[in-house]
This record gives sequence, structure tokens and C-alpha cells, in this order.
Amino acid sequence: MLERGPFPSYGVCGLPYYLGGVIAEAESLIAYPAAEFRERRRIDLRLESAVATVDLGERVVVDAGGIDREYDALVFAAGALPIVPPIAGVDDPRVVTVRRLEDAIDLHPRLDHARRAVVVGAGYVGLEMAEALHARGLEVTVMDRLPRVMTTVDAEVAEGVQAETERHCRLLLDAELRALHPRESHIDVEHDGGVIPADVVVLALGVRPSTGLVPALDALPNGALVVDDRMRTSDPHIYAAGDCIAVHHRVLDAPAYVPLGPAANRTGRVAGTVAGGGDAVFGGVVGTAVVKVFDLTVAHTGITLDEARARGWEAEATQVTAKSRAKYYPGAEPLTVRLVHESGGRVLGAQMAGRDGVAHRINVVAAALQAGMGIDDFAALDLAYAPPYSPVYDPLIQAAQAAVFARGRDRT
Amino acid sequence: MLERGPFPSYGVCGLPYYLGGVIAEAESLIAYPAAEFRERRRIDLRLESAVATVDLGERVVVDAGGIDREYDALVFAAGALPIVPPIAGVDDPRVVTVRRLEDAIDLHPRLDHARRAVVVGAGYVGLEMAEALHARGLEVTVMDRLPRVMTTVDAEVAEGVQAETERHCRLLLDAELRALHPRESHIDVEHDGGVIPADVVVLALGVRPSTGLVPALDALPNGALVVDDRMRTSDPHIYAAGDCIAVHHRVLDAPAYVPLGPAANRTGRVAGTVAGGGDAVFGGVVGTAVVKVFDLTVAHTGITLDEARARGWEAEATQVTAKSRAKYYPGAEPLTVRLVHESGGRVLGAQMAGRDGVAHRINVVAAALQAGMGIDDFAALDLAYAPPYSPVYDPLIQAAQAAVFARGRDRT
Repeated sequence: MLERGPFPSYGVCGLPYYLGGVIAEAESLIAYPAAEFRERRRIDLRLESAVATVDLGERVVVDAGGIDREYDALVFAAGALPIVPPIAGVDDPRVVTVRRLEDAIDLHPRLDHARRAVVVGAGYVGLEMAEALHARGLEVTVMDRLPRVMTTVDAEVAEGVQAETERHCRLLLDAELRALHPRESHIDVEHDGGVIPADVVVLALGVRPSTGLVPALDALPNGALVVDDRMRTSDPHIYAAGDCIAVHHRVLDAPAYVPLGPAANRTGRVAGTVAGGGDAVFGGVVGTAVVKVFDLTVAHTGITLDEARARGWEAEATQVTAKSRAKYYPGAEPLTVRLVHESGGRVLGAQMAGRDGVAHRINVVAAALQAGMGIDDFAALDLAYAPPYSPVYDPLIQAAQAAVFARGRDRT
Repeated sequence: MLERGPFPSYGVCGLPYYLGGVIAEAESLIAYPAAEFRERRRIDLRLESAVATVDLGERVVVDAGGIDREYDALVFAAGALPIVPPIAGVDDPRVVTVRRLEDAIDLHPRLDHARRAVVVGAGYVGLEMAEALHARGLEVTVMDRLPRVMTTVDAEVAEGVQAETERHCRLLLDAELRALHPRESHIDVEHDGGVIPADVVVLALGVRPSTGLVPALDALPNGALVVDDRMRTSDPHIYAAGDCIAVHHRVLDAPAYVPLGPAANRTGRVAGTVAGGGDAVFGGVVGTAVVKVFDLTVAHTGITLDEARARGWEAEATQVTAKSRAKYYPGAEPLTVRLVHESGGRVLGAQMAGRDGVAHRINVVAAALQAGMGIDDFAALDLAYAPPYSPVYDPLIQAAQAAVFARGRDRT
């Protein structure tokens, strides 16, 4: 097992919480230490061992030290790389991305001496980093070239995310990054509407599959490797897994690039099992995710109305804002639920935002999506009720009922 | 609309929270005040109007005042009555049940002057009342004739509920109530192992359908009215809804008595719609419920292993205790998940207990049950992951994987 960096198997998703001071020790993010692999699992783990080339014809991996390693089966799990725009100034050490634990460990103490941060990109990682930097006492500006935050949800839900961000940060939308100008005392972040001085600049522009070593393998246009449900690539000796592959999206019934932790873990297990001569299958994803944005939880699964319409599907959305618990119970908070469906037919997705009870409710829709459930059947779900946890009609049910009753149907 | 008591449409489920002081005003529990029905909905609501007889042949309801009311369509929604054992002393005013708002309003101030409470019955209402009385500063003894608490979950999950109860109360199991002996200063609660002095005794022995007025209608042995999916009883002029009916249990594929709020609400809406000439259908329940027991949340859906085996079904259970969030994230708590399945086939039910993240996770299983999902497909669910909310493999997934991996299958 060849790993470019100094750490094996750590949780990238935890980096904002380490940087924000929620998690004290960087080591906490390491799922299994090197000794677990080397001693207990008897795997020859080589850290700081970047791969220079992969020769598919000769079935040889050459590491950066020039050592050849032949393979019968190669599991390619090189992950993803942060997208860095080709502009001046990105190499300044005060310009960072949030992807590698070693980078986060380097950045952590430097934040004590920083006062102003600019986060470029208002997607989920950008917003998590805005929260982290704010928690560390920095003045934070989040900028995005789009007129809105978080395109993984429709604008009607993103509005609430934007408001929550603006409670803690300056948010600059419709602002395209032009250049970074390193000065002695700071960096000037130039966008198409002006200049923002910053002590640290976080680039949170998304990731791309790290598949430059295997250009001959079948891939999506963005480079994500195409695999079958056993993680077999177009080369019979190469399996692939993690953030460098496209996964089967059950709602779209097509491969999609959804680089998230659960599928990365599962596809890794499947690839290793199959490469080792066993059998395992990965059935795909429905695109479920959740993110904490300051005091708000934002979750989504399936596809948005924008995505459905972009594909020419006849779809509509039903949105309600209801209380997260019985209205009389302490802690009840407004909860927005948006359900996307084939105009009264199959449920296509959901988006939720609120301060209470969001994160696990989205999973009810994830189960419904996997089952191909229709909106009428969804409205009939028998969900748990007790005053500390839900109103008698759960907000999910209220959102579905809004779709069902609008059609004069009542099947519950 | 004839209602025996002085209040319309209140949330019985909120009574323990009102009595415990979590909710300050009894009025908060009223979903809609009388004026809503009378003025806005133009319904002739008669409070404190008990019904004396229902004459099915003449289609006449006679109220307690002797007034006859003819009907073409009658919606019978008399609810349920607390079970009171036929023993001495139950009529003492210091012996109470938790069912009617007016009784709770009467009891509330009296708890200020009570020191010792005995709760008879360690089901969910008994445990909710134990929590409420403890919150009001009383010394609480919970007793049950069975050797365990909460038979709605299997013993392996009930153990944790028992431990949580014992952190706050005295718990007396295998103790059958024999008699209540009212004394001037207190009541002596006699059980088959001794006597407990109490200032207030709460009977929480469950409920039975209040259907004594309509004995000619088809009913289950316990009196719960049998209805079809449009809430039609065996009398073509009578519809029934709420806690007085049996509902279709989708997992058992049979009528069952599951007197809980959500189905009561839904069946009420269906009965009213159909009785009024419209059309609506109630598809049934899967038996989902959640209860707060002090700092623990306990939830279940479907059937227990005990229930499955009692029906002669080949079934088994898989149980894990995992962290509710990423192990490094603050607030992560142990979460027990027990999945009952047809020995590798269809999921039959789930039980969960923990201090964090229980209440809405159970609904994922509720959705799976309604869809008739198998345990392999359940293990493949794409559930939301972010460190503040879940480990990368959600505890639900870990429980399902335990079942799948044990069979040498890996379809995720």
C-alpha cells in the first residue's frame, strides 16, 4: 500500500473541526494508525511513497524512488485533488486548501496570528471552513462567483443557508476571483468587483479525481474512473475506489461524481475484496449529504429541482417550514423540507435546513429513494412521534402531504 | 361533535411534560381551541356532552341529557380508556391515570405537596410519568408485574432502559399490584412482595378501546373496532377512527391495536373525509414509536424478535452499539441498534436506545419496512455523513452489516 502523505486513513471531513478547535488533536482524525495496518492486518504500508508512473502494459507501479513493483491486481485509490485556479499568487503559503491532514497541521498554529480570512467558494467545504475560521476568531469573508451559496440545494433552501452565513461572515456573491497579490503583511484578493485584504486565503472550489497516473482507463470527462459494481475498471487488472471514481447514482441511473466519505469507504472495501479474489458489490448512491453551517444543519439527497429540470424531467417541488418538535415542547425550531418529485409520482430528492432534527430525517428520504417510493406512499409513512422529537405530523410528512393534497389525493 | 370532556383536540402525549413542568401551560396542549371548530370550521361542537347510547337500528345517538340525534353517518372516535385493575382503593383521589387533560390539570398543583410516588406499570407511559414526577422532585418507585420494562422492545434493549430508569428511580420488577390501602396521610401500595407508602399512585397499565357503546360492531377481542382502509366499520352508517380502532399493521399484514397519535390523527381525517362523501385511504402502520426515558431516547418500529418468534416466523436479530457521531466529535454517545429480520431476508423491525440521535434514525427503518426492504438492501442505504451527526458508517448501517457480513455477503 503506497501512500504519498505521512498519514494513513484519516477523515478528511474532520479537518474543518480540527482547524476550528472543536477537535483538539489532529491524531483523533486518524481512523487506524500505521501499526494497525502493518502489525495487525499484515499490510506492507509505505507512507510518503508517491507513485511516479503506472505501466498498464507491463503491470508495474514505479514509485518516486524509482522502485518497480509488479502487480497482478492493482487497487487505484488516489482520491481527489483540490481544484486550484490557474491564477497568480496561488503558490503563496498563506493560500491554502483543505484536503490533507499535514496541511491542516501546518495551518492550525498560523491561524492564531491571522486576523482576516477570505474563503473562495461557498459550497459545503467553504462554509464549513468559514465556520471554523470564525470559531478561531477570524473575520471571515466568503466569496463565490455565483449569485448564491450551495448549489447542491435549490435556491429556495440556499436562501436560509445564506442568511445563516451572513449572521457570522461577510458574504460576497457574484464575485469571481481574478488574482491573489501577496504583500509582505497580507494578501490582496482581487475579484471582479474589488480587492479584499486577507491574512489567510482558503480555496474551496471543489475537487477533481486524481487520475492523471492512469489516463488510459475509461473515465468521465472530469477524469473520474468508470467502474462496474465490483469496482473493476476498463483494465482487467485494475480496480478503483474512493474519490477518484464515478459511482452509480440510483436516482439518475447513471454514473456520477459524488466524492463523499461513505461511498469512498464502501467502494474501497468492495475493490479490496474483489481484487483479493472475494466477491462484493456496490449498489451505488442516491446522493445523500449533510453539512453543518454554523448553527444550521443543511441536508440533501437525490436530485434538486434544478437538476431534474436540467435533464428535462417533468418534476416539481413541494416545500414547507414546520416545527421540528411538538410546538409546545422546548427546543422546537423551524425546519424547512423541500421534496422534489415526478409531479406526484416518484420521489426524486429532498433538501432540508434547520437548527434541530435535520441530519437523520434526510435519511428517511434516502431510504425512500433507494426503494423508488412514490410521493403518495411517502406521505403515508408511519414515522415516530413523541413531543420531544416531532410534531404529530412530522415535517417530512407535512411536505409530502402538501404534494398529495394539492392533487386531491389522500392515501395515508 | 359530541365530546365528553371540557376540552377538544388536545395532545394526550404532552400530559407527562405538562405534569413534569417542561410545559408551563395546560392550554399549550390544545391543538385547536373550541372557537376554531365552532367559528372557523362551522362545526357544532358540544363539550361535556357524554353519549349515553347509540342505537344502530334507529341511527340515533342519545346524549347524557337525553337528547336524540339522528345520523346518516356517524364517526365513532371515542378513543381509549386507561386500564384500571379491579382492586380495592383505586377510587381514592390520590390514585390517578394519565389520559385526560382535566385530570392532569387537577393533579398538577397537588404534586407540589407530594413527596413519594408509585408508578404502576413500566411501559412507555409509566416511564414518561416516572421522569415527570422525578422532575417535580418526588421520590419515585416504578413497579411492574413483569421481570422487565418496556415489552415493546426485546429484553436486550430493555436492559439499557432499565438501567436509565434505575439511575433516577427505584424500580421494582416481578411485583404484582395487589391492593391500594388509602390511609389518612398516604396510600399503602400492596404488591406480592411488600408494601410501599405513596402520596400519589399513577396507574400506567395501558389502555383499552372505548367501544362499550357499540358492542354490535365487528371488533378484535380487546374491543378495538375493525375497519377497512376507508375507516368503514361493519355498520354501513358508522365510521370509526382514533384509539378505538384496530389499524392495518403492514409488517404483520393483519389488524393490530396500536393506539398512537399519528395514526389516530390520520384515521380521523380519513373517517371524516369518507363520512362526508369524499374519498381517502389509510394504508396502515408499521408500528413506529419513540419515547424519552430520562436522558435516554428509546425507539422502535415493526416487530420485535419476541413477536416474530411468537408468530412462528423464522427470524433473528442483529445488535450493535456504535457511536452516534464521528468518534472524535463532541457529543458522540453510544447508540444501540437492534435489527430484526427474516434471517437475512426482509427487515421486520428495529429497536434503538441512546442519548443522541435516536428519534429520527428509527424512521429510516420505518421507511424500509413500508417498502418491504431486505436486510442486504438496507445495509446498502446511502445515509448522510458528516462528523457532527454520524460516523462514516451510520450505526443503522453497522447493524445491518453485522447481519450481512455474518452470511458472507457484501452487497453495499
